[in-house]
This record gives sequence, C-alpha cells and structure tokens, in this order.
Amino acid sequence: MDQPPRTAQLSDAPSQPAPPRSAPLRIALAGLGTVGAGVIRLIEANADLIARRAGRKLAITAISARDRSKPRGIDISAYAWEDDMAAMAARADVDVVVEMIGGADGPALALARSALAGGKALVTANKAMIAHHGLALAAAAEAAGVALRFEAAVAGGIPVIKGLREGTAANAIERVYGILNGTCNFILSTMEDTGADFAAVLAEAQRRGFAEADPAFDIEGTDAAHKLAILAAIAFGTRIDFAGVETAGIARLLAADIAQADALGYVIRLIGMAETEVGPDGACRLFQRVQPHLVPRAHPLAHVDGATNAVVAEGNFSGRLLFQGAGAGDGPTASAVVADLIDIARERAGSAVPGAPFSVPVGELESLPRAPSGHRRSRSYIRFTVADRPGVLAELTAAMRDAGVSIESLIQKGRGGGDGADAVGVLVAMVSHEGPEAGVTEALRLLEGSDSLTSAPLVMHLLGE
Amino acid sequence: MDQPPRTAQLSDAPSQPAPPRSAPLRIALAGLGTVGAGVIRLIEANADLIARRAGRKLAITAISARDRSKPRGIDISAYAWEDDMAAMAARADVDVVVEMIGGADGPALALARSALAGGKALVTANKAMIAHHGLALAAAAEAAGVALRFEAAVAGGIPVIKGLREGTAANAIERVYGILNGTCNFILSTMEDTGADFAAVLAEAQRRGFAEADPAFDIEGTDAAHKLAILAAIAFGTRIDFAGVETAGIARLLAADIAQADALGYVIRLIGMAETEVGPDGACRLFQRVQPHLVPRAHPLAHVDGATNAVVAEGNFSGRLLFQGAGAGDGPTASAVVADLIDIARERAGSAVPGAPFSVPVGELESLPRAPSGHRRSRSYIRFTVADRPGVLAELTAAMRDAGVSIESLIQKGRGGGDGADAVGVLVAMVSHEGPEAGVTEALRLLEGSDSLTSAPLVMHLLGE
Repeated sequence: MDQPPRTAQLSDAPSQPAPPRSAPLRIALAGLGTVGAGVIRLIEANADLIARRAGRKLAITAISARDRSKPRGIDISAYAWEDDMAAMAARADVDVVVEMIGGADGPALALARSALAGGKALVTANKAMIAHHGLALAAAAEAAGVALRFEAAVAGGIPVIKGLREGTAANAIERVYGILNGTCNFILSTMEDTGADFAAVLAEAQRRGFAEADPAFDIEGTDAAHKLAILAAIAFGTRIDFAGVETAGIARLLAADIAQADALGYVIRLIGMAETEVGPDGACRLFQRVQPHLVPRAHPLAHVDGATNAVVAEGNFSGRLLFQGAGAGDGPTASAVVADLIDIARERAGSAVPGAPFSVPVGELESLPRAPSGHRRSRSYIRFTVADRPGVLAELTAAMRDAGVSIESLIQKGRGGGDGADAVGVLVAMVSHEGPEAGVTEALRLLEGSDSLTSAPLVMHLLGE
Repeated sequence: MDQPPRTAQLSDAPSQPAPPRSAPLRIALAGLGTVGAGVIRLIEANADLIARRAGRKLAITAISARDRSKPRGIDISAYAWEDDMAAMAARADVDVVVEMIGGADGPALALARSALAGGKALVTANKAMIAHHGLALAAAAEAAGVALRFEAAVAGGIPVIKGLREGTAANAIERVYGILNGTCNFILSTMEDTGADFAAVLAEAQRRGFAEADPAFDIEGTDAAHKLAILAAIAFGTRIDFAGVETAGIARLLAADIAQADALGYVIRLIGMAETEVGPDGACRLFQRVQPHLVPRAHPLAHVDGATNAVVAEGNFSGRLLFQGAGAGDGPTASAVVADLIDIARERAGSAVPGAPFSVPVGELESLPRAPSGHRRSRSYIRFTVADRPGVLAELTAAMRDAGVSIESLIQKGRGGGDGADAVGVLVAMVSHEGPEAGVTEALRLLEGSDSLTSAPLVMHLLGE
C-alpha cells in the first residue's frame, strides 16, 4: 500500500532551495480562473509559514488553462506551462494535481481520472464532479494508494469535510444540515433586511457579484444539493446519492413570506439536511432534502447572514457542532485547497497510506434506500395566493381538515401590503401543527385545479430548535 | 523518524478478533472520573463505526484510577486493572496512553512524561497540563517519534485544535478569540435571561452541575486562559505563554452591567482573545487577554448561550471562521479524545511520522515578546459605583477629560433599580470612543482613593463586529 511511484519521482525533482525537512510537494494546477489564481496567490503569499507547518515546501511545478495570455493579476512566468492537461498530470515532476477547472464532466473529470490513474494525488474544489463521480474517483485513488481531497467543494473555506471526516469521527452522526449556498443566503438575508422582492434582490446580487449571470444552479438548490450529498456520504458512511436529494429552490419566495415568517419569530434560510432513519422494516434509510425552511430565531443558523455558509453536525456523543464561515470566494476556497495540499505534504511522501476520501473505503460505504418524506412529522408553513372573493378561506381550511392537517396559525393578508403578494392575489399563510408531511401534500392535492388559487401553493418546513 | 518500538510491540499483541484492515490500536486509560468513563462508554458504544473509519479497532488494554471499586456506571471487568500508572504505561501491549486524571502537575504529568519517554503516544484532555508543560511534552513526543494529541483540552467536543492546526493551516492567522469557558457563559447568559445577580446565578449553576463547588478556576478566567494560551501557540506558531495572558474574570459583574450593555445593543461574554501585532521596533509581539467583553448583537458570539463554547479564527485567506459546540461534559469531551485516537490509528502503526503537536516542531516555535495593552486602541465600558451626592459626575468626567478619554455615552442610574447596583451605590456607566487603553487606565489612576467611589471601577472592552 506504499507509494513507490511517488518516492521514485522525488529523486528527479528539479533543483530548488533546500526545503525545511524534506523534498517539496510538487503541484500541477489546472484551471486559472479566480479560484485557481487564488491558489497560486496563497501559495506564494504564505510560502514560509506553509513550509514550516507542512514540514516541506509546496512547489508549483506546472500550470495549465484554456487561455495562456488572459490577464489574471498574477505572474505565472515562473511556472511551466502545459497546453495539454493530461500531459501536465503525467509529468514526472508532479506529485499532486489540483483541479480548478469546474464542471461535473468534461475536461475536469478527464483530468481527475488521468491524474489518479497515473498515481498522482488529486485536490479539487469541484462539488459537481464529486457529487456525480466522487465514488468512482475515490475508488481510483484508493486503488492507486494516493490521496483524493475536496475540502473546498463544500462550504468554501470552512473545514467541514475535515470536521466530519476526522473531527467527529468518533460519533454516530444523527443529522447533518446547514446553509450551503452563499448566493441564496445573501438573497434571503437581503430580502429580510430590505423588504425587497426576490427578483430585485437577485438583480442586485448579480450586479455585486454574489450571483452568477445564470443563477439557476444556485437558486434552484442544485449547488446546495451537490454539497449536501457529499456531506451525507461522509457523515453516514453511505454511497453518494445526489439524485436522491429532494430539492426546492428559493425563486418562488415572496417578500410577504419573509414578513410572515418574521411575524411568527422565524427567518427563512435555504437549508440542506440529511439524516438516517429506521424504516418500518427495521432497515436504515437516508433522507436528504434542500428546501427553504423557517428557522427559529433562537437557532444559530438564524443569525447566519449574507454570503456566509454554516454546517451543523449532531453526533451521539459530541452533541451539536456548528462550523461557520465564508462559503465562496477565491481566498476562502484557496484556503481549503491549500489545507488539503498541506495535509498531503504532511503525510510524507512514500510513508503513509492516505486516508479514505469518504472516511471509510468506497467498498465499505453503505447503499441506503431513500427515505420517503411523506411519513416525516414536521410543522409546515403553507402559503397560498388566492382570488379575493368570499368562501376561499373556507375552501382552504376544509381541504386541510379533510387531509387531517391541524392548523396552528393562519394569517390572511389583504391587498396593498406592497410586499410582492399583490401581483399574485391575496396572501393566506398557515402554519400546521406537527404532523405527517403527507397530510399537507394531500391537502394540496385536494385543492389542485381550484380556480380560487391564483398561483401554486408554496410549502416550507419549520426547523426545530 | 519511524517508530520501531511500536512496530515491534504489535507482534506480541494479545489475540483478538481480526480487525478490518490491521491490528488494533491498543489503549491504556488512566483516570476514570466522569470523562474517563465517558471515553470507555464511547469506545464501546461506537466500536463498529470507529473501526470502519479508523481502519482498525480501538482496543482498551488496561485501565487505572485511584479507586478500583468506585461505582462508575460502566463494567470495567473486561480491562486489565493496573494500580501503578507508570507500570500500565510501560506495558508491551499498549500503543497509546490516554490521560484523564487532570491537574497541571502530579500524577498526570508523571504519567504523561513516562508514557512519551517509553515511546507511547499520548492523548489528554488536560488543559492545565498542556498550558504549563505542553512544550516540554511536545518536545518529548517529537523526540520519541510518537503522537501527542489534546483536542479535548480546548473547547470540549469542538474540533478546534484540528481546525487551527490543519483546517486553517494555509493561513496567517490574524486573530483567534472566543468563548472558552462554559461555566462563565452559562452564568452570563442566565444573568441576561433572568436579570438575577452573579451570586444567585452562580449558586444555581452549582446546584445544576454547571459550576464546580470551588468555581474560582472558571470564574476568575484561569481555565479560559489555559485554553487561550494553547490556541495562540497553534494559531501563531509561538511558544505557549500562559503567564502572559492578561486575565480578568466575571465575579465583579452586576446585573446592572448586563442591563446597561443590553440598552447599548450588546451582550456580555467572557472572551479569550489572542493576536499578534507589530511593535514600534518592527518586531512581532503577542497579545493575549481573557476578559468580559461587550459583544455587539450582530456578532455571532452574541448568540452563543448556555454552557456552549465558540472559537473564531480570522485567517488572511479564509476570512472569519467560527467553530461552536459543547465546551464540556463527558460526551463531548470523549468525542474529542476518541477523535484523537482515531487520528493516531489512521496514521498506521510504524508508517507515518506523527504531525507536530503544535503544528510546527517545538524547536521552530517563535518566542514572541508580550504586547503591552496600553497602546491598544479600544472602545471601553467603564462602570463606577459612586456615592449619591452632588459633584460626583463632574469628578468622574473631569478625570476622563484629563486623561484624554473621549466619552461616547454615559448612563447614570438612580437607586431602586433592583439590579444589584443599589447595594454598592449609584451606578454610572460610560462608553468611550475608540482610543488608547492607557487613557482609561490613567483616568482610573486619577480617581484612585477618591471617596466618591464606593467600589473599584470595572472596565470591559467592546468587541468589534
């Protein structure tokens, strides 16, 4: 299980000033966008302290990107340029490949595969690639006896992969959840602060660089679902099941929803949540959901504002742990990428077998069936927009009654609130007592096709304290 | 730098069921109080998942404590009992010694020294011992090529040592600070919730088990100072300087202080804070302080209630990271101890050189001079209790003026508030504009001996957002 190829490579390293205690860790970097350039900037800026902590230098040997001449604000002339990424990964003077290209497939995946197959360690920030191909890549890394690390793929600069993989390793994790998308959190907390509607805040976020020109990946919850699927695999020792994440985004939220939540003592946050449960047959099942939730003000996640991310892990001995910080940006992402590189450097070339990327070897990860959401007991916020005419409220509440949903509170809001509800009708928001989620689904089914409704109802669940 | 003694020992391990991928990590545990017993309970309860994640079993080989027959709620009959801790540490069938005895010196230190000298890895939760003797123990561990780990010594179950040593390893840390003592935080947040005075809340905390019968170590800030000194060493790569921590506790706080802080938009928390700064001679200096602070409501630490701990690290690339969770208790502490054991088990006997306990080898830690607090620019809360007579306010404000302290706000509170101030006189609280802390010190010097003051003034600084 040792790594003879890497040991052999060390002998033909290009001559460099003598590193503190052993040969430099030689890095090839593919992708020189904001984050890739940030990695170079960090390795240069903090070179001395990194060498002290890692016990050896981090030396960038070769770089590659689509366009060599694009201005990046950094001097790349000291690094060997390779047009062909596969050739770069195959260089004898490279120990680790850093993949900063992005995209679940295409050149990123091709590079990752060729690096691992060639016995190079791989560090990536690519959440989509890990969510879709992480297990195959981890199996390749384990077969080659090299490291695969992806701290930066989840929650940016927050060391939460390490936190789960190592920090809480002694615990059976009961639940892992959090705020996994900074764009959505920026939009939601800005809606909260300003009372503005979703579309206006999204436009502002795009102007300020907190949201992409094509924001679908973020606001539809896909990005958060990628991260959640990765966290769940590590927390529960299960195979990644990205397709099993029940995902809803934030695009349908109205300023009125934020206002109603506020009146009830809640804020709205896009929460990714995963937990295991025991099904009626006694077998363990995995539940994964990304959805805007009502978060009580007493919960630490209620105070996570702006583009910040936060992850909560609940262990059977540790209790509740919270990890919070910047979820994106070139600095925080580079911080996580280079932490992975330092871990690899500390493993000392040729001596240690790198840990399993998903905490346990891929072959030992469990394949859990998906837990259906219907039987989950939740409190739900259900928001209708309805025609302004008599009898509508009776129709809604009858549907709830017939579906066995018990209403804890109901707010009907007339026109003229100026909070975005006007355009779609009169707003009726209910909060249910705790009960099976299937009840709410059934109530909405009973109302399907009713011409009292001016838009599709919106359901969000309440996060417990 | 490999570990021949440990490799040799593995061959004469007692026969056990075959572990997943290699021989068990054999553990000797000294000290069977609440936390020591919690470690045993955790290793038993989560044995299977730990073995999967560590790649081998954790096997408790031998145990030792003062009193063999004391009831502990766990069955210890399966483990070899040793009356002599040194003999236990020297057993050939032991790879790691877990020290759960407590106390900076005495039997804990003797055991730690003998374990490391004998080539055994050491895991401890003993903050006092690490704060006082951590460097000597780390040097011994590095010389022997064995691991020394102490995650549980700081902030209980929160993996903050790992967070700083590994998670933020790529960063120059600019500041590390947080809520490091659960007892104080429980008392302060209860005072806040109930309006009760310090003495009453302390008594309640003692009844509920959140405070020791002798609470001095906690409420005087010593425990937080131990933890801060350890964090600072890892964050800044400096030698531990526990004696250099400027320490003030919470015993002099009045309910009226909490109320005044609240009126200004702050809560009061005992904050341990360390940062490096560049002195006038261009040399780097270390500032370490434990003191109750006014924390603005918008700061994440303002929402840390009860016995919870939280640590903030600010890195030059990561930005602000927050780690939060249970700071004490047998479950969280055991979680951290066993995480250390899993790390050691993952390092694979005989293959890897364990990482430096303080991130960089002891010989490379810097010895920084202490930064004086006087030139620090802070906003200060200064609370006086004064005699109820004319001219006193003029006397106080003249002293501030003469010392060059600019007052931003001043509240004088008459008798009858029922918030603990009555007993000591009329309460006058001021908040200064930002300025050198020496100014406030000078103002208090000018007022020294004045018979207008009915008790010594209390100074707290305001934490920035």
